[in-house]
Amino acid sequence: MTTELVEIDERRLLRRLDELAQRGTVPGGGLYRALYTPSWVSATELVMGWCKEAGLLTRRDAVGNVWGRIEGSRGGRAIATGSHIDTVRGGGALDGGLGVVAGVEAVASLVARFGRPNRILECVAICEEEGSRFNTNFWGARAIADRLEPDEASRARDADGVTLADAMRGVGLDPANAAQAVRRDIDTFIELHIEQGPILDETQGRLGVVRTIAGTAHLEVTVRGQADHAGAAAMERRRDALLGAAAMTLAIADVAREMGAPAVATVGTISVEPAQINVVPGLARFTVDARHSDNQRRVDLIGEIEKVCKVIGRERDLTVEVRTLRDRPPVSLNERTTDVLRRAARSAGIEPRDMNSGAGHDTQILSVAAFTAMLFVPSIGGRSHRPDEATAAEDVVLGTRVLATALHDLAYA
Amino acid sequence: MTTELVEIDERRLLRRLDELAQRGTVPGGGLYRALYTPSWVSATELVMGWCKEAGLLTRRDAVGNVWGRIEGSRGGRAIATGSHIDTVRGGGALDGGLGVVAGVEAVASLVARFGRPNRILECVAICEEEGSRFNTNFWGARAIADRLEPDEASRARDADGVTLADAMRGVGLDPANAAQAVRRDIDTFIELHIEQGPILDETQGRLGVVRTIAGTAHLEVTVRGQADHAGAAAMERRRDALLGAAAMTLAIADVAREMGAPAVATVGTISVEPAQINVVPGLARFTVDARHSDNQRRVDLIGEIEKVCKVIGRERDLTVEVRTLRDRPPVSLNERTTDVLRRAARSAGIEPRDMNSGAGHDTQILSVAAFTAMLFVPSIGGRSHRPDEATAAEDVVLGTRVLATALHDLAYA
Repeated sequence: MTTELVEIDERRLLRRLDELAQRGTVPGGGLYRALYTPSWVSATELVMGWCKEAGLLTRRDAVGNVWGRIEGSRGGRAIATGSHIDTVRGGGALDGGLGVVAGVEAVASLVARFGRPNRILECVAICEEEGSRFNTNFWGARAIADRLEPDEASRARDADGVTLADAMRGVGLDPANAAQAVRRDIDTFIELHIEQGPILDETQGRLGVVRTIAGTAHLEVTVRGQADHAGAAAMERRRDALLGAAAMTLAIADVAREMGAPAVATVGTISVEPAQINVVPGLARFTVDARHSDNQRRVDLIGEIEKVCKVIGRERDLTVEVRTLRDRPPVSLNERTTDVLRRAARSAGIEPRDMNSGAGHDTQILSVAAFTAMLFVPSIGGRSHRPDEATAAEDVVLGTRVLATALHDLAYA
Repeated sequence: MTTELVEIDERRLLRRLDELAQRGTVPGGGLYRALYTPSWVSATELVMGWCKEAGLLTRRDAVGNVWGRIEGSRGGRAIATGSHIDTVRGGGALDGGLGVVAGVEAVASLVARFGRPNRILECVAICEEEGSRFNTNFWGARAIADRLEPDEASRARDADGVTLADAMRGVGLDPANAAQAVRRDIDTFIELHIEQGPILDETQGRLGVVRTIAGTAHLEVTVRGQADHAGAAAMERRRDALLGAAAMTLAIADVAREMGAPAVATVGTISVEPAQINVVPGLARFTVDARHSDNQRRVDLIGEIEKVCKVIGRERDLTVEVRTLRDRPPVSLNERTTDVLRRAARSAGIEPRDMNSGAGHDTQILSVAAFTAMLFVPSIGGRSHRPDEATAAEDVVLGTRVLATALHDLAYA
């Protein structure tokens, strides 16, 4: 068992984070590195170059996940690390990017310092997690874990109507081969990620280990009233769909607040029809993202949200339709693998904080195919999915060294 | 003075309304006849054909208003009637269309039955009133009344980024010539229109004369909070711009309700950024349409709306910016011309109801350039700006005959 914190090339790590952050910058600030776009291609090629430079066997799999691998002297199932390379629209440099760059750095440093491992060691840049372009969250991890849906690539479309399948072809991938990305030979997967919340930052914690990743439900609520003339229709005669949606939006936040942390509920998108300045909206449509780390509480939360929408609809003579777009239960990560992370953190003299993740992560998907654990470093001010998401350089370095130490423990023992 | 109700060709009137309703149909029902689009061109050509068939001098002016004219034996300033030929998105057959078709029918019938008038008599299909494509409400009437803004045609853009100027060129109009559409020789303008509200329908009234057209303010409210991760950001830490906008939307409706009819206030459009299902909205932007027929009450209404938005913004730690897009005071129509309409209605044995119009109309713009009056026929169920807006055929015929009778009174006396 390793007791010493593994050394890495700190300057290379930080420089590469900066390099990756140049891929996908958008006017007005922040990043948008969407799946199968030119900035995504450029970022994956960057990672491939780093893997090759480290002497790793480098390949792009059937959906575009980039893998770097060194064989282990004893063979068997692989020890892997990584995160996703796509970003949300207007995102920052670290969400996903940190785990990708740190994974390459950890594996490269281990190979450079300790040579061939006993067990196969791999790093991966997962092609898509955020669902920002196609609403296909976890596309990359689901491909690895054999959780793609039939015909998903031909059904999913981006805002311009381009199918995921066509987007794959555009970057030289054949959607018919997507199933070839499945891996059944990964023993352990560890992901380093920014917390994306304020807890470590506010408690001066430097490292967290994730016990549970919250379950996420995505709902689409459609409210139908009656379009009417904004000048001629008297207030008391209206069946204004947006007034209903506004009342529901407020009530949904109240439901989560009353349930208490870690319950969260968010209306992230809203639209009306006919969307004219001088017409009373006849239809309003919005989405709800609802999460809780306890599954029963999560189910209760969703039930309450549906109920308040229905009640408000009845009160306002509006019809309400609630559609479930996604319903993922919470995932508990592997205790033994999490213990490996704890030991690695202690070798840096730090007792990591046990945490629940409100955000979803590739790790929750890979939990069906491998033993998994997850390490958090602080997000300054709890900021994430924003251009200014940030982590202190010393925490980036610390997290990467702890990751490398855990991988050493697993692959070289 | 006419005491007998003028005859018209009822079947031709109703047939032409149906013909016009075929121009600009959209999948899913209703009409969208947007300025300078192919369906608009087709509709204006249809009207030109009718005017020519009636033996009128027919022309398209510099912005695309279509005029039919017969010279009067005594010359002088013209007596005109008409309405707009464009529609809202998802609109019906009568809003604007009725006044266009009825205007042509009234003039054609008068000329056929009574020959050359003493005064110049004109009918007009006004090119744009609704602002549905370029948000340039009353473009046609403003061109006639010399109320276009400098460079308006090059600044206004549709949702696809096409300028109004380019759209004009696309239908053979030169935006540099727009000022040639100004008319300083119109004595009287009378518009027949559907009520677009429920009052006549509910009181079994068949005709209304408009005393005042409500003043309309259009505001754009921008609410800025902080985008955040929908899973990682705890409820009580959020500065959710959409929650603020939702509370404002509800409060704005309450302000209008508390002030009482005819105050109305409508949030007709809303959008958020970054508009992702799993991101707390950092920005919300919505529009407000606020109206009252009394100018002081209208000013109070706008003031109250701005105030509640600011108060809610402060309560929720959001910044709020209110921009005035448009601010039109109420317009009182001409009493003497309205009396001509009243007399014409009485010749049908009907005492018309005095009304205020919550909706805006070309007439309010033309009031700066001519004596104006406006005649309403019932909207079944008060429906308007909807595919199923409707008026009983007998009311369409009655309104057109009363219009023709009033024009006879003015042009043949």
